[in-house]
Amino acid sequence: MRIGRYEGGEWRATGDEIAAEEPLQLLLDGEPLSVIMRTPGNDIELAIGLLHAERAITSLDDDAAMRISAETHETEEKIAVRADLIESNAVDVHPRETAARRPRRSFLSSSACGVCGATTMDDLAHDHAALRAGPTVGAKALPPLSDRMREQQRLFERTGGLHAAGLSSASGELITLREDIGRHNAVDKVVGRAVLDRAVPIANAMLAVSGRAGYEVVQKAIAAGIPILVAVGAPSTLAVATAVRFGLTLVGFMRADRFNVYSGPERVRGARLD
Amino acid sequence: MRIGRYEGGEWRATGDEIAAEEPLQLLLDGEPLSVIMRTPGNDIELAIGLLHAERAITSLDDDAAMRISAETHETEEKIAVRADLIESNAVDVHPRETAARRPRRSFLSSSACGVCGATTMDDLAHDHAALRAGPTVGAKALPPLSDRMREQQRLFERTGGLHAAGLSSASGELITLREDIGRHNAVDKVVGRAVLDRAVPIANAMLAVSGRAGYEVVQKAIAAGIPILVAVGAPSTLAVATAVRFGLTLVGFMRADRFNVYSGPERVRGARLD
Repeated sequence: MRIGRYEGGEWRATGDEIAAEEPLQLLLDGEPLSVIMRTPGNDIELAIGLLHAERAITSLDDDAAMRISAETHETEEKIAVRADLIESNAVDVHPRETAARRPRRSFLSSSACGVCGATTMDDLAHDHAALRAGPTVGAKALPPLSDRMREQQRLFERTGGLHAAGLSSASGELITLREDIGRHNAVDKVVGRAVLDRAVPIANAMLAVSGRAGYEVVQKAIAAGIPILVAVGAPSTLAVATAVRFGLTLVGFMRADRFNVYSGPERVRGARLD
Repeated sequence: MRIGRYEGGEWRATGDEIAAEEPLQLLLDGEPLSVIMRTPGNDIELAIGLLHAERAITSLDDDAAMRISAETHETEEKIAVRADLIESNAVDVHPRETAARRPRRSFLSSSACGVCGATTMDDLAHDHAALRAGPTVGAKALPPLSDRMREQQRLFERTGGLHAAGLSSASGELITLREDIGRHNAVDKVVGRAVLDRAVPIANAMLAVSGRAGYEVVQKAIAAGIPILVAVGAPSTLAVATAVRFGLTLVGFMRADRFNVYSGPERVRGARLD
C-alpha cells in the first residue's frame, strides 16, 4: 500500500508492506465459539492449538480422520478431531467426544473469576498437573533461540509488525516457527502443529516468544507440557507466580549475552535465585 | 522478587520488580460480563472506558451520581453511570438506561463474525460515524508525543513490562497517561478518564500508544472520537483499512526523527500518500 514517510525533515510518498490482520470465526461442533483477530495462515493449527489450551480438545486418537479442506494445502491427518476450514475465515472443530466440551473457565467464554489471581491458578490446576522434569540446558543454549527465530521471521522482516513463537528441541534446533499479529496466536499455532503431529505433551522442548510473557502465554506453555519458556520481553507477576506453581522454567529479557531466570532455575545449569 | 540474572557469562541472584497482572471481573448491572487481565489501578476508568468502546455505555448525564468505593481514593463524580468497585478485583457498572445494553457484536461477547474484515468494519459503522475534521498538526509535533509519554512511564521504568497510552492536546501537551500490561487496557483507562470527565468525544486531541496499532486500538480511538492515533509500532492491514474508512489519521513506527502516515494525511501538514 501507499504511505507517507517523514524522515530527516522531508516528506515522501512510498510503498510499504503491512502485517495482515483478519477476523477468524471459531466454531465448536458447528456452534460459534469465538472470533479471533489473527494473521491469516495456519488457521487450523490456530484453532486446534487454542482449543487444546482451553481444554475443549483433550484427547487424540487414530480412529477418526481429520479432514482439511483444499484451501489449507495440507495433507489429511489422522487424529481424533476433525476440523473444517469454511471459506478462509472460519474453522469448525469437531472433537471426538460425543458431547463437545465447551470451555467453561477459559477466556473464550469466562465472565466470572475468583477473588484474585490465586483462583485463576486454582482453575488452571484443575486441568493441568505440574510439568515433568524435562531437559536441563546450559546458559549459552538460550540466547541463540531468539536469534534463530528472528532469522526465520520472514513476515516480520517485511512488515515489522508480527510476533513469533518458536519451538526448539532441548539441543536448540528450531522445530516449528509461526508468526502472527497476536503473540498468543503464534503460540497457539505452534502448539496446534504439535497436536496435529500428536507430539503433545511437548515434554523435551523449549518455547521462545518474541514479546512479553503474560499469564496467557505461560498458561499455554503449561497446557502443552512445555517445561521451558523463553521470552524476549518482560514477564508479569501472575506469569511468574503461575510458572512457580506449575514448575515451569520462565526466562525473560532475552538478549544476545544476558537474560533473567524467574522460576525453575534447576533446568538451567548454574542458575540460582537465592 | 528474587531472580537469577545471567550476564557476561556470570550468574548472580538479585532482586527485581515485575509488572503486575491480575484478573478484573467486569459486571454490567450485576451480571458478570467478562474477565480482563490488567495491571491493577484505575480500574473504574478501565471498566468505563471498555464499556464505552463497546457501546454498553452510550450516554452521559448529570442526573445520576457515580459512586466509587473508598478503595479508589477518587472523589465522587456526577455522571449517568454508577460504578461500584467490589473488593479490588471486580467492577460493577450500572448504566443509566433502564435495560443495560449488553454488547452484541463486541469482542466481549461476540462469537459470530461476518465473512471478512469488511463486515467487522460494517458493524463498527453501525455504532460510529466518521471522525470530525479535528486539528491539523505539523510533522515536528508528533515525535515528542512518545518522548513525553516515555518520560512519565514510571512503572515501565521499573519493570520494563508495561504498555502506555497517552492523550495529548492538539498542541502536544500530555493530558492523561495510563500504563497497563495490556495496550488495549491502557487505551481504555485513558478514554474512561475522559468519559468520567465528560470529555468525549475527544475531538481535538491525539492518542499515542507505546506498541503496535491493531484493529482494536483503532476501534477504540474511533469510538472515543479521537482524530489522530500515533503508534510507536507497526499497524495492521485491518487497522489501516478501518482508519481510512472512518477518517482517522493513523501514524506508525514513531521515532525521534521519523514516522509513517498510513491514513488521513490531511491532518499532518506536508504529508502525502501519493
